Amino acid sequence: MAEALTGEAILAATEEVLRRYGPAKATVVDVAKALGVSHGSVYRHFATKAALREAVTRRWLDAVHVEMAPKFDQGLTAAETLRAWLQALFDKKRHGHSEDPELFATFQVLVKESNVIPDYHLEHMVGHVARIISAGVETHEFVTDDVQKTAQAVWDATEKFHHPAHAQEWGNPHIQDAFDAVVSLVVDGLRYNRIPSAAGDA
Amino acid sequence: MAEALTGEAILAATEEVLRRYGPAKATVVDVAKALGVSHGSVYRHFATKAALREAVTRRWLDAVHVEMAPKFDQGLTAAETLRAWLQALFDKKRHGHSEDPELFATFQVLVKESNVIPDYHLEHMVGHVARIISAGVETHEFVTDDVQKTAQAVWDATEKFHHPAHAQEWGNPHIQDAFDAVVSLVVDGLRYNRIPSAAGDA
Repeated sequence: MAEALTGEAILAATEEVLRRYGPAKATVVDVAKALGVSHGSVYRHFATKAALREAVTRRWLDAVHVEMAPKFDQGLTAAETLRAWLQALFDKKRHGHSEDPELFATFQVLVKESNVIPDYHLEHMVGHVARIISAGVETHEFVTDDVQKTAQAVWDATEKFHHPAHAQEWGNPHIQDAFDAVVSLVVDGLRYNRIPSAAGDA
Repeated sequence: MAEALTGEAILAATEEVLRRYGPAKATVVDVAKALGVSHGSVYRHFATKAALREAVTRRWLDAVHVEMAPKFDQGLTAAETLRAWLQALFDKKRHGHSEDPELFATFQVLVKESNVIPDYHLEHMVGHVARIISAGVETHEFVTDDVQKTAQAVWDATEKFHHPAHAQEWGNPHIQDAFDAVVSLVVDGLRYNRIPSAAGDA
């Protein structure tokens, strides 16, 4: 089987091993066993255990980044696109946390143990927000003098709804109301000429 | 000394004992010893150890609530008042965390172990934000159809700068820039008729 061994097959097996044994116990030998190869064969593709773990984390996050690419073909305003994007992120995080807590915890450990992965992920996610803000600036729906800085501010202002340190709060029955209120405030902060909300809006 | 024993003296001694031994080890006997009284004398004022700890936490938070009462006599706009208030809160949190980490950690434990204290604190702090927003609505600087809900949204959107789960990020060299950007976004979201920031603003 060793002659057909690809990096992709190793990464898929590593993800499975991590899921089964958890990040503290999973070893390269476990991965080699799962593939029916020697651990030397695995090391020919990934020089160290750390490199293998970082590659599997990057592969998982890349899938998230593709899935989370903003959709501009839905006939939505930039404000609606931003709200839908933040909602999709929040849903993904809280469902991941409640439905597959082991995998959620595993990837949290993997992301944190790397020096480069957190920034890699942040760059992609804030980049998605920046693309939505740019689209809104183009249509004069939004205004900002620095798209990148504003995208980072939107990310930071919504941290309660995507940062894992807040996962315990996501089961709160009023969390969706809290999300809606923060997103409304943030979107109003982006608008070119804010339309005052009428009392009848409530 | 027992005849002069007041609730206030017990609370001051308890705070000192908590500071010295930490929340895990501090006992009512330690408090009684520090005061030169029997532990029965302490229990006549506070029926349980939990009640004593809750009272000392409430006393500490009450001082914070008074200190953090918004100042409306500084000739500032509501936006400036809100920014100054959030800055004072952030400074208080990050300096408390870096300069007196034991006391910071102690009160974190005390706040969390109570069923009522977290809401008590939140209500006061969000109440302060609501008073600033109300003042801005009165002068037509801000607009909102629900001051209380919007105050909670401002609190939630700035969580990165006051929630203890983010304390590790407060030493980041760019954290003040991140704070400024989030507060600008939030304040813009509150404005009655947002003035688009000119490109020359940057």
